[in-house]
Amino acid sequence: MSSHAIALTAGEPAGIGPDLCLMLAAQPCRHQRVIIADIDLLHERARQLGLTVELTAFDPSQPPAAQTAGQLCVQHVPLTSRCRPGQLDPANAGYVLETLRQAGQGCLDQQFAAVVTAPVHKGVINDAGVAFSGHTEFFAELTHTAQVVMMLACPGLRVALATTHLPLRAVADTIDQPLLERVIGILDNDLRHKFGLSNPRILVCGLNPHAGEGGHLGREEIEVIEPVLARLRERGLDLHGPLPADTLFTPKHLDQADAVLAMYHDQGLPVLKHKGFGQAVNITLGLPIIRTSVDHGTALDLAGTGRADAGSLYVALTTAIEMIEAGTHHD
Amino acid sequence: MSSHAIALTAGEPAGIGPDLCLMLAAQPCRHQRVIIADIDLLHERARQLGLTVELTAFDPSQPPAAQTAGQLCVQHVPLTSRCRPGQLDPANAGYVLETLRQAGQGCLDQQFAAVVTAPVHKGVINDAGVAFSGHTEFFAELTHTAQVVMMLACPGLRVALATTHLPLRAVADTIDQPLLERVIGILDNDLRHKFGLSNPRILVCGLNPHAGEGGHLGREEIEVIEPVLARLRERGLDLHGPLPADTLFTPKHLDQADAVLAMYHDQGLPVLKHKGFGQAVNITLGLPIIRTSVDHGTALDLAGTGRADAGSLYVALTTAIEMIEAGTHHD
Repeated sequence: MSSHAIALTAGEPAGIGPDLCLMLAAQPCRHQRVIIADIDLLHERARQLGLTVELTAFDPSQPPAAQTAGQLCVQHVPLTSRCRPGQLDPANAGYVLETLRQAGQGCLDQQFAAVVTAPVHKGVINDAGVAFSGHTEFFAELTHTAQVVMMLACPGLRVALATTHLPLRAVADTIDQPLLERVIGILDNDLRHKFGLSNPRILVCGLNPHAGEGGHLGREEIEVIEPVLARLRERGLDLHGPLPADTLFTPKHLDQADAVLAMYHDQGLPVLKHKGFGQAVNITLGLPIIRTSVDHGTALDLAGTGRADAGSLYVALTTAIEMIEAGTHHD
Repeated sequence: MSSHAIALTAGEPAGIGPDLCLMLAAQPCRHQRVIIADIDLLHERARQLGLTVELTAFDPSQPPAAQTAGQLCVQHVPLTSRCRPGQLDPANAGYVLETLRQAGQGCLDQQFAAVVTAPVHKGVINDAGVAFSGHTEFFAELTHTAQVVMMLACPGLRVALATTHLPLRAVADTIDQPLLERVIGILDNDLRHKFGLSNPRILVCGLNPHAGEGGHLGREEIEVIEPVLARLRERGLDLHGPLPADTLFTPKHLDQADAVLAMYHDQGLPVLKHKGFGQAVNITLGLPIIRTSVDHGTALDLAGTGRADAGSLYVALTTAIEMIEAGTHHD
């Protein structure tokens, strides 16, 4: 099997992102890991952590090669301002965004087979005067993608969200038939083409408790969700529900399922993060590129200390590799 | 330690309630288990299940006694219509309600130390022309209790709900400061007096994703939840939050907590039922009596087959016993 180059953005330089990228080098990799970051920052952070890592400049003109333990490639993007662990500096916001841009563009140019992102700090980027609402929106815009779907996964469970970061009181009115149809279409399509599942079985949560209990606890299941599921089943999608969220996440239902679609953030993610603590990965579906991410923040207080846990970044990388290898998306 | 009499209502006669009550007899019990049901129904169901259970008429004039395996007491309430497993009959709705009434009244009269309920079927009771919205509301009315709090528990986790069975779109407007203050007050009080916790540590979820992210994803945390928590902390309650629901259910937070307060049904119960599958118990807080229940329905298709799982009823009984023994509520 041939090797691919995989971009890893180190994210906020004052956070644990550089640490986590360096910690990945403890394992060998059959693909070429390319850290997009300031190479001097990485050398300095490696010294602080007492890690010996061989950092080689990435050469896109060479075919990607497997890496032994201790080896990483770097695509150097210079910091604007010298970085101290734990100390945010708006002067480096442009640097962070440039690492994301190079990673995303490299995927579009097929220089990279996937992008894996370490955490950024939204606040400091906004403080620098740049409107930025997150990685997901950044890559959607860069790739001219109108609709993306956020999915979190851990061993044994995948949870996609129909809506993400909006106030709870806005959820019910946001979920209409066109939105739901687009979201389920993307979820089904990407499970097939990015995860290699030939006929993915998707469990769909109701919006209301007990999935509305036949209309007694809300009518959105009857008026919005069920009509969409009926239409998509006619097109051959294997959709189950709407099911009550409090009974759906039990073995009887989950054992046969490839993914769950939750209607909103706190309906699906508490279970996923409870079950997958330290092993959860965030995957953006609907993009023309493969993008996975850690499920945690910058943990400024842990940067440079050696106490950060690289578990989620490691799972994000292995998930990206599984998606590359399963992927018919290059076909 | 003295024995107490504990009422167990067998619930819907066509469902698995009678089966589960009989299955409890497989274990001895240091308290006196009193099944409130039709004794002929229990004999017939025991024959169908191939169980040998000694059913003795409950005599409230005698002091409660421990039971060996194979022994149960019965407080006989006659069925109106002969019951076949799996076949609902509205004619028996009055019977079901009478078992609940006798159990609740027996607790108020201190004949019983607790009531443990097997599942009822709301639909068939309503079909009989009786307005009935559930055990919880029934016992609240019987005991003249204005506000109760639903809490589910499993080994290692207790989750109480600020709101329960209402459409998602009604949740945000239902949670106001007076409601939240009453709910938290009941939760704290019952953890102290029914669970014997001297200073319960309670984690409180935000309403919105990321607990509102400083107001960017909703203002209810700032305008409703935080002021209530501040007031109650001044009275000595150990309250933490509002916390994002998707990170709250991880070991870092849960390891030190006695209970979680979720703002609504599908924010808290998916995790609880995922973690506690087959071992979850529903506890009604705020009542002047101890009441626990299974967390599942009547499973009509399993009645009389021997395939029902008594795990939840067993946990409901052992939880009631823990509450009786921890209880300063009798002091």
